[in-house]
Amino acid sequence: MPYFDAASSVPLHPVARQALDAALDDGWADPSRLHREGRRARMLLDAARETAAEAVGCRADELVFTPSGTDALHTAVAGVLAGRRRVGGRLVVSAVEHSAVLHAAEAYAGEESTAVVPVDRTARVSVDEWASALTSGTALACLQSANHEVGTVQPVPEAAEECARVGVPLLVDAAQSLPWGAVEGGWSLLAGSAHKWGGPAGVGLLAVRKGTRFARQGPRGERESGRVPGFENIPAVVAAAASLRAVRAEAGAEAARLSALVERMRDRVPQLVADTVVVGDPVRRLPHILTFSCLYADGEALLHALDHAGFSVSSGSSCTSDTLTPSHVLRAMGVLSEGNVRVSLPPGTEEADVERFLAVLPDAVAGVRGQLAAAPEREPARAASEERKGTEPVSAETEAAASESEVAPGETESVSGESVSGEAAEAPVPERTVDALGTLCPVPVIELANVIDEVPVGGVVRVLADDTAARLDIPAWCEMRGQEFLGAEGTAFRIRRRE
Amino acid sequence: MPYFDAASSVPLHPVARQALDAALDDGWADPSRLHREGRRARMLLDAARETAAEAVGCRADELVFTPSGTDALHTAVAGVLAGRRRVGGRLVVSAVEHSAVLHAAEAYAGEESTAVVPVDRTARVSVDEWASALTSGTALACLQSANHEVGTVQPVPEAAEECARVGVPLLVDAAQSLPWGAVEGGWSLLAGSAHKWGGPAGVGLLAVRKGTRFARQGPRGERESGRVPGFENIPAVVAAAASLRAVRAEAGAEAARLSALVERMRDRVPQLVADTVVVGDPVRRLPHILTFSCLYADGEALLHALDHAGFSVSSGSSCTSDTLTPSHVLRAMGVLSEGNVRVSLPPGTEEADVERFLAVLPDAVAGVRGQLAAAPEREPARAASEERKGTEPVSAETEAAASESEVAPGETESVSGESVSGEAAEAPVPERTVDALGTLCPVPVIELANVIDEVPVGGVVRVLADDTAARLDIPAWCEMRGQEFLGAEGTAFRIRRRE
Repeated sequence: MPYFDAASSVPLHPVARQALDAALDDGWADPSRLHREGRRARMLLDAARETAAEAVGCRADELVFTPSGTDALHTAVAGVLAGRRRVGGRLVVSAVEHSAVLHAAEAYAGEESTAVVPVDRTARVSVDEWASALTSGTALACLQSANHEVGTVQPVPEAAEECARVGVPLLVDAAQSLPWGAVEGGWSLLAGSAHKWGGPAGVGLLAVRKGTRFARQGPRGERESGRVPGFENIPAVVAAAASLRAVRAEAGAEAARLSALVERMRDRVPQLVADTVVVGDPVRRLPHILTFSCLYADGEALLHALDHAGFSVSSGSSCTSDTLTPSHVLRAMGVLSEGNVRVSLPPGTEEADVERFLAVLPDAVAGVRGQLAAAPEREPARAASEERKGTEPVSAETEAAASESEVAPGETESVSGESVSGEAAEAPVPERTVDALGTLCPVPVIELANVIDEVPVGGVVRVLADDTAARLDIPAWCEMRGQEFLGAEGTAFRIRRRE
Repeated sequence: MPYFDAASSVPLHPVARQALDAALDDGWADPSRLHREGRRARMLLDAARETAAEAVGCRADELVFTPSGTDALHTAVAGVLAGRRRVGGRLVVSAVEHSAVLHAAEAYAGEESTAVVPVDRTARVSVDEWASALTSGTALACLQSANHEVGTVQPVPEAAEECARVGVPLLVDAAQSLPWGAVEGGWSLLAGSAHKWGGPAGVGLLAVRKGTRFARQGPRGERESGRVPGFENIPAVVAAAASLRAVRAEAGAEAARLSALVERMRDRVPQLVADTVVVGDPVRRLPHILTFSCLYADGEALLHALDHAGFSVSSGSSCTSDTLTPSHVLRAMGVLSEGNVRVSLPPGTEEADVERFLAVLPDAVAGVRGQLAAAPEREPARAASEERKGTEPVSAETEAAASESEVAPGETESVSGESVSGEAAEAPVPERTVDALGTLCPVPVIELANVIDEVPVGGVVRVLADDTAARLDIPAWCEMRGQEFLGAEGTAFRIRRRE
């Protein structure tokens, strides 16, 4: 049963397992104790630190182990913001950082002091925009080495140069790229997470280069150079370090092999499945990640369909998130979020597994599209909404909310007297309104697709939609379909037919 | 080779190891994912939470797993102080809490807002003093279930009643007692640490009873009910829960057995080793901990001697701590800190091991005392100081510091014209001064013991000593020896001979 969600977590590497077994015997004692069990634990911890530092490309005394990659990022952001308080409180982050960085920004810098550098449609920051964000008063800048949702590699060496030019330390979230190699460039801090490279859960790492002003926040402690309170998790740390070295030894060959498999999927998925767009940088990318979005498909239903077909993948569609908002990464890229699928191949993935995935994908997508409403032939809104209820578990709360709103999706037609921006002198254009209020993604887009051909070229469709994802997906659909997105006001989106 | 430092950490319980092995196979995926690997991980996590909650005595939805016991305590203190900010910012703690609680108090409440409830000479808080500390504006009170250094059990049910009476939530640090049983009484929050009961490192637990105002501080996250950011450490959590259940099944019989062994040591250590005092409550105590202090002995040297003889123990003497201050627990109790030894028996300790320990202890202590200066027969200060240099590794830094201070320990004799407090009308008493400036514990006490017999009854010895431990050990020695401690001014301690 192929597991294609390596970017979330991978099983324990055999080397990690062996190291863990040994270190559970010898590394359970308190390394700050003077007795032989304590000294043995200390030796294991020191050796693991040396190994990890070598893989990261720093000195052993610059590296501490944390309980998670998230904790490493939180500790780093808090520590540098406090250590450089005199310089200012401004924090620079890319728009596509991991939520751990964005949450730390929110908690420690605040929205007003956080500058978000936008990305292009491949999720990459521009070095020029990065440089111009580094204004005076900037205490810290954060850039991932590669994006966790779409695999795009960021220009870290160039960003680090810009940071160095103005004396701003750069924190690199290397969680996704660390298994594949050390991060190049003059970074000041770097964070990683062991369960992403085949180490055990419960281990992150944080490197802070000498000379970086850093003031640990929160209660003090004596462990890990005073940077990480709490009893050291030595067996897991030993396993993490050993497996990082092991995966690095295999990284070159495995990267080439997986990258070719991803390349094949990048080519073939759009051929096999209509109305599908592959997102992320096609070249400057991690070897093992492929991300695509399917129009007119529900992301969660698609995950279930693929799971049923034997493939474990992940999705940035709003439909799968607790918060019901689409992935901030896809939003920042301005690409379609509906029917989003991330395939991330673990080391050792066989060509045959990839072929089998390509074989089952078209049917899986078709099935999901069929459950909702196959655009553009079918009756939209109401039918779609009913079918959705019939085929998916709907909680009592959802049903209650739906009946409370009492907004039945439907259509009205009108000729608008309003002028379209910049064309005040023209005659009124025919405008058709689609009411998709109360429906969730991808229904608003399906409804739009269903009526666009019914207005004349130059005519306008007005879609009423209150699902958050619509703000991303309606413009993205226009971009994909060559239609003109005129803008949104509140819950009303206006689209002009171009072709 | 008997390991007698169970209160620091114990080896992995066999049940934990089995559970860990199984959960490493099935619990490595992200439990928030919808695919089968994620669902399997989620099931393991849910089951572990049920098991742990049952052992703690709370509902599963009241319990979260943290990266360590320390983290659980920090999270608890920060969360309740923030959640009850409107009530006030006052924090009540016992003087003998674990440093994790005291550090959290320092970071989140501040010294001025922290009320420290003193303990008696057994390390136990008085319920009356506890109750009177709970003044208005108290947001949280913290009391350990049992002390980690001397094993004394605290009156948690009574303290909880007092807290409930005035509506103050009680946080119980149950790290030391959780292997032995659930904490009785109406606590509001409870923290524990898995590596103390035979679970793996990297797992703490925090229970927050429904109805307790709690506002998680720091960056937000979606894992563990929003209370603990970072990827869940499921294999370790599963092992922790399984081993807690397993040790509890054995707890009754093992407690009775170990308690009898500790009782035997409590009786025999003072008989076997002169000038030794057993500290902590003799009855209301954990089953497995014995703590004693040996006059005229260096704690670190004693640990090494016992380690050499095959026994791993721990010490609260200043000599073994990074900070060069004696244990705050011993200080709060007002007992001798020099030559301090904590013996904490892991489950399964054999009677023969305890007998062997009792057999080697007298020679170990005698050897250490001999290295320093056997009081009171031998020449004090200078000789002691020189012998110390000769027999212990002295770092370059220590030597530099010693030669820098240029204070050679020595004696001067004088008849003081000063009046002793409250006795202004009396004739001048003979007063003898011992200069122990620049020497470390236990040298000042050895010097005092060496000269006390040389002043007449009613005469005064003035000891000059700048080692922090002297502030604790000179009064404690007076108490043990029936001499009168007149007080300290700066680095001068005055003692009147009584007998």
